[in-house]
Amino acid sequence: MAAGAQKLAVSLLFVLGGVLSFPLGQERKDTVTCGYESCHATKPDMLNVHLVPHTHDDVGWLKTVDQYFYGDRNDIQHAGVQYILDSVVDQLLKNPDRRFIYVETAFFYRWWKRQDSGMQQTVKQLVNEGRLEFVNGGWCMSDEATTHYSAVIDQMTIGLRFLNETFGACGRPRVAWHIDPFGHAREHASMFAQMGYDGFFFGRLDYQDRDRRMMAKEQELLWRASDSLTPPVADLFTGILPNGYNPPEGFCWDQSCNDPPIRDDPDLEDYNVDDVVKRFVAIAENQALVYKTNHIIMTMGSDFQYENANLWYKNLDKLIRYVNGLQSNGSKVNVLYSTPSCYLQELHRANLTWALKTDDFFPYADSAHDFWTGYFTSRPALKRYERISNSNLQTCDQLEVLGGPVSRKGPFGEGDSQTLKKAMAVAQHHDAVSGTEKQHVANDYARKLADGWQHCQVLVSNSLAALSGSSSQRIYCDNLNISVCPLTASSKKFSVSVYNPLARPVTWPVRLPVNGTAYTVSDANGKPVDCQVVPVSKATQDVRRNRGFAVNELVFQVQAPPLGYSTYSVSLLQDGSRPASTQHRTPTVIQNKFLKVTFDPDTGLLSSLSNLETQQSIKLAQNFYWYNASAGNNFLSIQPSGAYIFRPNSSTPFIISSTAKTESIQGSVVQEVRQWFSPWVSQVVRLYADSRALELEWTVGPVPIDDSLGKEVITRLDTSIQTGEYFYTDSNGREILQRKKDFRPTWQLRQSEPVAGNYYPVNSRAFIKDVRKSTSKNQLDFGGDLNHRLDPGMF
Amino acid sequence: MAAGAQKLAVSLLFVLGGVLSFPLGQERKDTVTCGYESCHATKPDMLNVHLVPHTHDDVGWLKTVDQYFYGDRNDIQHAGVQYILDSVVDQLLKNPDRRFIYVETAFFYRWWKRQDSGMQQTVKQLVNEGRLEFVNGGWCMSDEATTHYSAVIDQMTIGLRFLNETFGACGRPRVAWHIDPFGHAREHASMFAQMGYDGFFFGRLDYQDRDRRMMAKEQELLWRASDSLTPPVADLFTGILPNGYNPPEGFCWDQSCNDPPIRDDPDLEDYNVDDVVKRFVAIAENQALVYKTNHIIMTMGSDFQYENANLWYKNLDKLIRYVNGLQSNGSKVNVLYSTPSCYLQELHRANLTWALKTDDFFPYADSAHDFWTGYFTSRPALKRYERISNSNLQTCDQLEVLGGPVSRKGPFGEGDSQTLKKAMAVAQHHDAVSGTEKQHVANDYARKLADGWQHCQVLVSNSLAALSGSSSQRIYCDNLNISVCPLTASSKKFSVSVYNPLARPVTWPVRLPVNGTAYTVSDANGKPVDCQVVPVSKATQDVRRNRGFAVNELVFQVQAPPLGYSTYSVSLLQDGSRPASTQHRTPTVIQNKFLKVTFDPDTGLLSSLSNLETQQSIKLAQNFYWYNASAGNNFLSIQPSGAYIFRPNSSTPFIISSTAKTESIQGSVVQEVRQWFSPWVSQVVRLYADSRALELEWTVGPVPIDDSLGKEVITRLDTSIQTGEYFYTDSNGREILQRKKDFRPTWQLRQSEPVAGNYYPVNSRAFIKDVRKSTSKNQLDFGGDLNHRLDPGMF
Repeated sequence: MAAGAQKLAVSLLFVLGGVLSFPLGQERKDTVTCGYESCHATKPDMLNVHLVPHTHDDVGWLKTVDQYFYGDRNDIQHAGVQYILDSVVDQLLKNPDRRFIYVETAFFYRWWKRQDSGMQQTVKQLVNEGRLEFVNGGWCMSDEATTHYSAVIDQMTIGLRFLNETFGACGRPRVAWHIDPFGHAREHASMFAQMGYDGFFFGRLDYQDRDRRMMAKEQELLWRASDSLTPPVADLFTGILPNGYNPPEGFCWDQSCNDPPIRDDPDLEDYNVDDVVKRFVAIAENQALVYKTNHIIMTMGSDFQYENANLWYKNLDKLIRYVNGLQSNGSKVNVLYSTPSCYLQELHRANLTWALKTDDFFPYADSAHDFWTGYFTSRPALKRYERISNSNLQTCDQLEVLGGPVSRKGPFGEGDSQTLKKAMAVAQHHDAVSGTEKQHVANDYARKLADGWQHCQVLVSNSLAALSGSSSQRIYCDNLNISVCPLTASSKKFSVSVYNPLARPVTWPVRLPVNGTAYTVSDANGKPVDCQVVPVSKATQDVRRNRGFAVNELVFQVQAPPLGYSTYSVSLLQDGSRPASTQHRTPTVIQNKFLKVTFDPDTGLLSSLSNLETQQSIKLAQNFYWYNASAGNNFLSIQPSGAYIFRPNSSTPFIISSTAKTESIQGSVVQEVRQWFSPWVSQVVRLYADSRALELEWTVGPVPIDDSLGKEVITRLDTSIQTGEYFYTDSNGREILQRKKDFRPTWQLRQSEPVAGNYYPVNSRAFIKDVRKSTSKNQLDFGGDLNHRLDPGMF
Repeated sequence: MAAGAQKLAVSLLFVLGGVLSFPLGQERKDTVTCGYESCHATKPDMLNVHLVPHTHDDVGWLKTVDQYFYGDRNDIQHAGVQYILDSVVDQLLKNPDRRFIYVETAFFYRWWKRQDSGMQQTVKQLVNEGRLEFVNGGWCMSDEATTHYSAVIDQMTIGLRFLNETFGACGRPRVAWHIDPFGHAREHASMFAQMGYDGFFFGRLDYQDRDRRMMAKEQELLWRASDSLTPPVADLFTGILPNGYNPPEGFCWDQSCNDPPIRDDPDLEDYNVDDVVKRFVAIAENQALVYKTNHIIMTMGSDFQYENANLWYKNLDKLIRYVNGLQSNGSKVNVLYSTPSCYLQELHRANLTWALKTDDFFPYADSAHDFWTGYFTSRPALKRYERISNSNLQTCDQLEVLGGPVSRKGPFGEGDSQTLKKAMAVAQHHDAVSGTEKQHVANDYARKLADGWQHCQVLVSNSLAALSGSSSQRIYCDNLNISVCPLTASSKKFSVSVYNPLARPVTWPVRLPVNGTAYTVSDANGKPVDCQVVPVSKATQDVRRNRGFAVNELVFQVQAPPLGYSTYSVSLLQDGSRPASTQHRTPTVIQNKFLKVTFDPDTGLLSSLSNLETQQSIKLAQNFYWYNASAGNNFLSIQPSGAYIFRPNSSTPFIISSTAKTESIQGSVVQEVRQWFSPWVSQVVRLYADSRALELEWTVGPVPIDDSLGKEVITRLDTSIQTGEYFYTDSNGREILQRKKDFRPTWQLRQSEPVAGNYYPVNSRAFIKDVRKSTSKNQLDFGGDLNHRLDPGMF
């Protein structure tokens, strides 16, 4: 068996009692019985079935978040969250036994703002009595593969803060609830543990993993979610739900379902109570076979359900009445309204030993040819925009504090960080930064982020004006990715401020669109800074189209202090908009004091990399390929490759070009080799003078579609490093996990997709190393914006 | 212009004040303000838009009535009436301005029975305050073309009686509401007037008629609905709704619709209040152009809507708030929650003169090639079963009274008339006896009727036992239509009781399945009755298949007193199951003392008919034909011929056979000529000894489908009568209306369907007469079960 599958005698370590010690009910002390205390009684000698009414409300997917809230565009998908919350509250009031959990604070917050004080008081009462319980409670249910931990913490913070400020202790979620994300990151579990959640439930895991866990009754486990934190700091009880997050088959009573309602009027045709009860008991007893205790959970809800909660509750009331009615005839099944925390409490009381898990739940496959590894790189432009927005939000946040409260209004309204904070929070959703949403929804996320940028720029201007005492106008270069900045492209003299939101000083290259061919740059003390003018690459010009006119870029290194900014002055020396010159001769070597990089003069491709400090060299070839996407029509599976699932129809990729046309640029700040592989693939290989990193910036697209073949474009690095098929990837940009080709730590993998089944999420860093040598100097590290398909099969 | 289109100076004659004089509110007098008094105030100087929230709940159609009630089989159609009523009551309670009307008491009664007394009290309060108003209020919304007035009165009675007993005066509908039936019968309007309704609203009328009425502002009119009753006894104010029964385009806020909700949160994208208000005001102002007053009505609902009434009301609340909010800026549009009776009250107050109408609204065409005349004969077997059930119900009803309360239980439960009464009531629905329901639903109606028969048979047995003092077992011959009755087919001696529910004595031929070849029959006094044995026809044997074994039928005339019964004794004289003999020679004449009927010896077809009393003779040919049903794929229209719409693809029918093989039977009781036209069309022409009617009993089917041609089978009678293209049909089995080929009394018809556009409903009687002669003796009458396509184009 694989290493991680060992079963340890570890007791459930979360302390439930502690939760109850929070100060409760300042407002209506007499009625406050929320939390574990508010759970319905169970029957120790029976099989207790915990029915958990819930709705899963995507913060954007097929429709935008606003369309979902209002129930607009129901022609796309029938879903209206405002009505769900209206309806659930009404129905909870009809029967105090009923329970409901709500998850996505982005929606709840919007709804709450529109309620009058009477309704708000009613909802508080429901929360205080444990009838309405918040679980998870972040602004959204974040994606776990493509998110950065800092943005996840931010989105959880604004959700939980709203609940705390609105409901006090009874509003505090005790359970993390990620029922839909497509694979589960260890870092997420670690964060949830550190945030104080008592347990974690999810619905999706590899089908082979699930099969094994069902046999072994290990669908409930203890996840030790950090290599570096001392247990139990990152330990989290984790439960895998029995049916994804759906009700058992035949028991969906939402308006969106077609299962038969309970027909209990003997005067009507088709009285079906006996049949319903029999089917339900059979399902419950089967489910109990694959879990450890005499408690089982059933998720009674699904996507955007409970818009008309009466249908659900009316039938659930009957189900409970009729199933429990058989107890007087000897039935040992006890059904109750419950919540995930009430279920968790019963598991805790069972006082059992649970299996230990230390790796993660990636990649996720729901059947042999359905590996959900495509979304790791879907919509790379949105993914990059989200990352840059995260940086901007940190700057905005810090300057909001440092610059004091803002009173001056900007052209886009009050300058504040809230707009970007909320835009970033919804962008963490598992159909947002994941890239699995529809195009119009992706546009809406980007629009929200852009709106956030504008609010933040007002704030930053005001804050920097207050801090510096200078009221000079500030222009923001938002489009540097396509070398567009009208100010720098047309000015003879300007200054540049750079802000560093990190807690350590940084040195960073800046590239500004310009039209001159020579400039002087000096720092705030008037000290000259080395700079260089390079032509805007053909690939960037193509992407830019007619949106800018700069022919060159001015490149120089900037330094900025922690949580601070620095300013540089730029003056034109030599005018004329001719592009800076390049050399068309194929270079064989570029190097600085740290690295030497060689190219094959015949192919124009990278050929080797030498670390001049350690005197180590490796062979390193790099090129671009594409896998032909499966159209889903072959005999093994109808699954096509798409936004979610990566499925090449062959494990051998097509090469785009075995040679590259090149040109090179030499200079004191940067050396570049520009490579053209095809009309739609080019790359700039950059080596800055003071850097230990080699930068590869590729531009891919528009991907040709005339041949009607789906193309999954990858870059591949072939090295001489002996990896032993091991490689390493980060988890949400934080801790590192070891991976091995065609291997899973906790079960004997039957590999059915040799390419897609070896993909893992990478957010900030991946590396390989020579297994024959022990020092970390033998690593080849990959970092930065890794929004591409980096093929691990070839490491 | 046509004769009926004259505009008379007739004032609206209904008296609204009278309704308010009912004794109200015995239970909660302080809060009773139902009726016209409970209407919202309107603004005399503005355009008042009456929003009428409503649901149209078919008592069976694509699903059975029980499936609709429970919301079962939502895969067929999403519809659950139990939830509609749950939801509407909840939502009415949230805002006292809101209004709702409910129509189908069959559903309301079921729902009411399941409510606890608290909910019943709440609903009574809503009714007493005029917030929930019943309109129409019969058990169902009956079909107007294919129903018999007696069954309609019965179904209205049980609905209205329930409302009266449950809610008293406030439960009394003031408005008849037939928004969906496919054409409107004068007799229905007459009945509604006589039942005391103040007005009548419907949605469907001929598109040419509507166009003219819109231009002339005659969509609201006074219908003088009887030729024989003295005005205003059968006068009824009648309003044609503006949009069928649907909301105006873009304003459907049901869960089943996709129109944009009102998005009034300025923080969200796509704030649309201004757009919604503008669109609404434009629609209202356009609608006002085609109605007479400054009040207009909008039906805010449709089929099975309001299952989640929150969606509707939340948006209607906003619509009213935002549209009326513009009044302070000079807008002259005033929107309010209303009901049909509140709207009617405003029309009454307008004190105008309305156009007079004396004909009916048949046939209904919604465009040039869509004449809804197919359903007049769809599902003829169900139509016949409904008619026989109506007779049985009258018997059952009467014997329930005559025989006193029943206490003895039968094998199918308590013997009572309620089961059949309710089954007959739902069968009056405009997708039941009309034949426009799905097959499984037609089966369910038949099953309900059969169940009703069984309950009634228990009742009848008990009642007759009580009345006669005899406890001998009674067997019911339910399957005489296929000559099946095991008792008569196997017994040597039995007695037969016949009950006459009519108020006059009847003489009627009885035909009993037997296997003997000679019998004696005697009446209750021992007096012999003439009888005859005839063979079961080949056509009947084919239809019967293996469900019976009688080879002969015993035929004799019975007499029964009004509301009474008589009994006959039957004894076998000659055994042996050989069929009674027939003559294979083609007859040329059959006759009795009243009629002489001749056949063409070459073709075997009817050739002439002579009235021996008046010495009048006419030529009379009769044969069977079929129109090829349009498949809907021609260039004029995609409309196919179907259950609703009759659309032959040519006006010339195909003849099934120009000759018939014949055989004849002579006897003292009956003379028969049996005709075979094809393997699927045969006919028995019968002349009883004492009858002035010639009976034609045809058996058609199974209709051949191998040629993939849809067949609309008709029988056609070609006579020498000079009709002047006039003919006459009954209305719901009661008064007679004159028809003329290619003509409508109230507008200049542009005929676009020469066959389908000349069909009218016939329930009990149709006739033609010689226009050159004035006496009624020159009529040729058609009566009985006219469940076929009798082609009026040929009269």
